[in-house]
Amino acid sequence: MSKELAVVLLSGGLDSCVTAAVAAQSCDLALLHLSYGQRTEAREVRSFKAIADHYDVSKARRLCVEARFLERVGGSALTNSAIAVPEANLDSPSIPITYVPFRNAHLISLGVSWAEVLSADAVYIGVVEEDSSGYPDCREDFCRAFEKAIDLGTRPETRIRLETPLIHKSKADIVSLGVSLQAPLDLTWSCYSDNDRPCGRCESCSLRARAFGQAGVQDPILS
Amino acid sequence: MSKELAVVLLSGGLDSCVTAAVAAQSCDLALLHLSYGQRTEAREVRSFKAIADHYDVSKARRLCVEARFLERVGGSALTNSAIAVPEANLDSPSIPITYVPFRNAHLISLGVSWAEVLSADAVYIGVVEEDSSGYPDCREDFCRAFEKAIDLGTRPETRIRLETPLIHKSKADIVSLGVSLQAPLDLTWSCYSDNDRPCGRCESCSLRARAFGQAGVQDPILS
Repeated sequence: MSKELAVVLLSGGLDSCVTAAVAAQSCDLALLHLSYGQRTEAREVRSFKAIADHYDVSKARRLCVEARFLERVGGSALTNSAIAVPEANLDSPSIPITYVPFRNAHLISLGVSWAEVLSADAVYIGVVEEDSSGYPDCREDFCRAFEKAIDLGTRPETRIRLETPLIHKSKADIVSLGVSLQAPLDLTWSCYSDNDRPCGRCESCSLRARAFGQAGVQDPILS
Repeated sequence: MSKELAVVLLSGGLDSCVTAAVAAQSCDLALLHLSYGQRTEAREVRSFKAIADHYDVSKARRLCVEARFLERVGGSALTNSAIAVPEANLDSPSIPITYVPFRNAHLISLGVSWAEVLSADAVYIGVVEEDSSGYPDCREDFCRAFEKAIDLGTRPETRIRLETPLIHKSKADIVSLGVSLQAPLDLTWSCYSDNDRPCGRCESCSLRARAFGQAGVQDPILS
């Protein structure tokens, strides 16, 4: 029996890399990256390519696309250089200014459009609900509602599952899972600010450092 | 009491123009156009601007954005010049090759991202369910599922309705409604193929001609 085909949304960060590793256990991979004007997109694309090489994904199953419109829509420190990336405050209950309005709807929609053309079986996204920055479009109930919209908004014969294998994991568990699946964590990038070295201060760096610390694993990009 | 603010997805075609006219009855307008590699995008943008001028919408509330990724994803005669635009077959039950996979999810997501930044109250889209080409992402149940995803995937304080005022209307009723609301139908464009004159043969031209005929109205773009 031939393997399933999965479109994996791969930013190049820790979570999406481990998501690719999970998908690779049972599926052939088609990898998708979106540049939407985020500050670190050039660095992200480098990680995307390195991870795609690691999993030996053919050129026809790699897609790096641009959607500058999120930059024009604005409203986020990630896409508007006039808004500073704040230092982390992991205990704050509010949604940080790095939230890109409804971003994951764009990412998932893109994955679904490509999956429908490829006749793929699933779209994988590495969203994490609890142990993250509190973005509303990372929640399980959002993903399940969106999956229903996928089912209703594509061709009748199209069946595309929305897979969210990390959604209820802690960041420390994600690190441990990545290690156990031999995911190439050394090729990932998480920092919101810099392109050369992780800043160590933004919320994404802070979440990553805490995760590796709790998992008792040395972060390979810092060694 | 101040008026509501509505983001209207305005392709520049008949349906979206009448949708803008409906929204304008009770809302201030913010108009959004997406160029996604469709053959007639230059002509569409001309119509978008003319309709925006007609409704005296300020520059800050007009947004024309590009998303070439649907062209790269492919799979549709509308975005792939290697696939011919077929002549109309309005009686066929199958989904035509002009279907752009999951396109309306991208359009609505874009409207929602902008609406969240603008603190708008609603996103209007001129989808038509029955009397149209049978695209799955034009159906009421898709729109209602998507509205639920909007509610769950945006900030807790964000409330954005997804308004589909034409969804159960016939094309003839849409023409009549547009006439009664004094919508600038003379500024609209529907043809899938050409940029100068409507081809008169594609499904969009055929649907438009049938609609004006049934409504007993002369199409102003043909006079």
